[in-house]
Amino acid sequence: MKIAIDAMGGDFAPAETIKGSIDSAHEYGIEPVFVGQESKIKAELSKYNIDGLSIEVVHTDEWLIEGEHPAYALRQKRNASILLAVKLVKEGKVDAAVSAGPTGGVVAAAVGILGTVEGISRPVFGGTFLGSLSPLMFAADLGGNVDIRPHQLLDFAIVGTVYMRKVFGIENPRVAILSNGAEEGKGNELTKSAIPLFKQSGLNYIGCVEGHDLVRGTANVVVCDAFVGNIVVKFCEELGKAIIKNIESDLAGKAPDEDLKKLTGKIFEATNMADTKGGGPLLAVNGIVCKAHGRSKALEIAKIIGEAKYFVQNDFLGALKTEILAAKSKLKEISGK
Amino acid sequence: MKIAIDAMGGDFAPAETIKGSIDSAHEYGIEPVFVGQESKIKAELSKYNIDGLSIEVVHTDEWLIEGEHPAYALRQKRNASILLAVKLVKEGKVDAAVSAGPTGGVVAAAVGILGTVEGISRPVFGGTFLGSLSPLMFAADLGGNVDIRPHQLLDFAIVGTVYMRKVFGIENPRVAILSNGAEEGKGNELTKSAIPLFKQSGLNYIGCVEGHDLVRGTANVVVCDAFVGNIVVKFCEELGKAIIKNIESDLAGKAPDEDLKKLTGKIFEATNMADTKGGGPLLAVNGIVCKAHGRSKALEIAKIIGEAKYFVQNDFLGALKTEILAAKSKLKEISGK
Repeated sequence: MKIAIDAMGGDFAPAETIKGSIDSAHEYGIEPVFVGQESKIKAELSKYNIDGLSIEVVHTDEWLIEGEHPAYALRQKRNASILLAVKLVKEGKVDAAVSAGPTGGVVAAAVGILGTVEGISRPVFGGTFLGSLSPLMFAADLGGNVDIRPHQLLDFAIVGTVYMRKVFGIENPRVAILSNGAEEGKGNELTKSAIPLFKQSGLNYIGCVEGHDLVRGTANVVVCDAFVGNIVVKFCEELGKAIIKNIESDLAGKAPDEDLKKLTGKIFEATNMADTKGGGPLLAVNGIVCKAHGRSKALEIAKIIGEAKYFVQNDFLGALKTEILAAKSKLKEISGK
Repeated sequence: MKIAIDAMGGDFAPAETIKGSIDSAHEYGIEPVFVGQESKIKAELSKYNIDGLSIEVVHTDEWLIEGEHPAYALRQKRNASILLAVKLVKEGKVDAAVSAGPTGGVVAAAVGILGTVEGISRPVFGGTFLGSLSPLMFAADLGGNVDIRPHQLLDFAIVGTVYMRKVFGIENPRVAILSNGAEEGKGNELTKSAIPLFKQSGLNYIGCVEGHDLVRGTANVVVCDAFVGNIVVKFCEELGKAIIKNIESDLAGKAPDEDLKKLTGKIFEATNMADTKGGGPLLAVNGIVCKAHGRSKALEIAKIIGEAKYFVQNDFLGALKTEILAAKSKLKEISGK
């Protein structure tokens, strides 16, 4: 399996990116195709034992820099490493692409070149976000889908269903709409208009759930628009940090340091998943493109490459396309009656 | 100062309600007017030393019961204790009313009889909700105002400004709109259309804030629609409880029980304010009506009565009306230009 690596993306590129890729080549048997400045890549490669590995390098002198306007930068830099990496996916020359470059640029490159899978108009930003506190719950959208229409909520649910099935092996994930009340009549215009769609979708729709259900793990897939999703995730991160501070200051010297560290580490992991998880695939993009955190080191890079391999091997995209077709044809069937 | 007490409202009524009221009469010098079944009230009163207190009783055989549909119950029970108590406010016979009865019924009675203050169409549900973690931050709407219009967000901000000024003595509270990003261009249709109103309102508007700012206390008044507010508050409550469970199980026997209890108590107080705060005034209702929790005991009842007195004495309503006029005339002035 060939995976294109944006060698220039990330705070510690190319050194850590290349180290992580070599590790993943040894560990997962993937064949890295490095996209970036050849001289730099070769200098890094010379540090490692790469005997027996199949490695390619695609040279370019351009790459994105954190802080640039993504669309503008991509127009200026036609040979940006992320663009070339995604093009390799498009051309079928690699099975997936991985980048730790700027999020906006990676998303714009992936969507611009690969598009989204048929039936879903925009990429979906989601994932598990409460770690050990609610491990079997996928939530979306946590990205940029604000002011959405009801069918988009359903798109998030379809993506989440396939995600929980493929990644966590839950055959029939419980799907819910996040709302301000579970009872009939509660909700806003968006959730109320989405309910009939969900009921007819063939998904395992269990109803509306409330804020506390996110922690209780009532559903395996919870959908909301990104305005709500973003506020909840950011609130969660900061609340976790504030409580950790309280634990550290109030129990310092009163419990063994080791136990305190273990506990606060657990709370941090549960409330600050974006910091601890290291990234993931861009969901609903028509090709496997995985985004690693900008500050990823070799270990995180290797993990993301492993994840990219997993999504390819388990045919996430094929399953997503099948599920979309199934849901959309159910809805059509019903509306046709 | 006379305060009408719904003697029949609450899980421990009339016993605890009357005990708390007598305590508050001694402590705050208020004159309770008990509304409820006279025989029961007098039986309770006979248990206490009420020498020198001015006490009145208004008899009725009807009161609301938890679980009834509020509007229906109020139509059936024209002499429900909460209705009579609020009518006393309307007629100027008392300065305020206090009830631990069912929330829906108390709100419906208060709004039905007193209406809302001029310029605000619906009652506003808000308050500080992060306790010691973010003590100087009022958030609204946390109640029923879903699918709102931009000017309603401004109404919440006006109410919050007066609340923080009157209750916390912050002369010029920093006002913010809760959003999915502080930068220009972020937000949803609602927040984007509200921004110009906020800029012109004369309030101390500092911009949009994000989920983490709720914990950081970036603003003193944060407004959102109740769909978002409800989800955030319920998520906060349950996340707090889950973290407390982790602390208790992971540190049991490893830190002194007393310290653990103090810490978890603090976290509970900060994340479950609705449970620990005991209620408050219905904001923007045209009269002071304070709702106590259904499970309030004497201590909580006395506290709420003290709060009712505080809102009357500090002329919360007068200040609110002035602030509304000021903001609305600023907006009119600008739109007239």
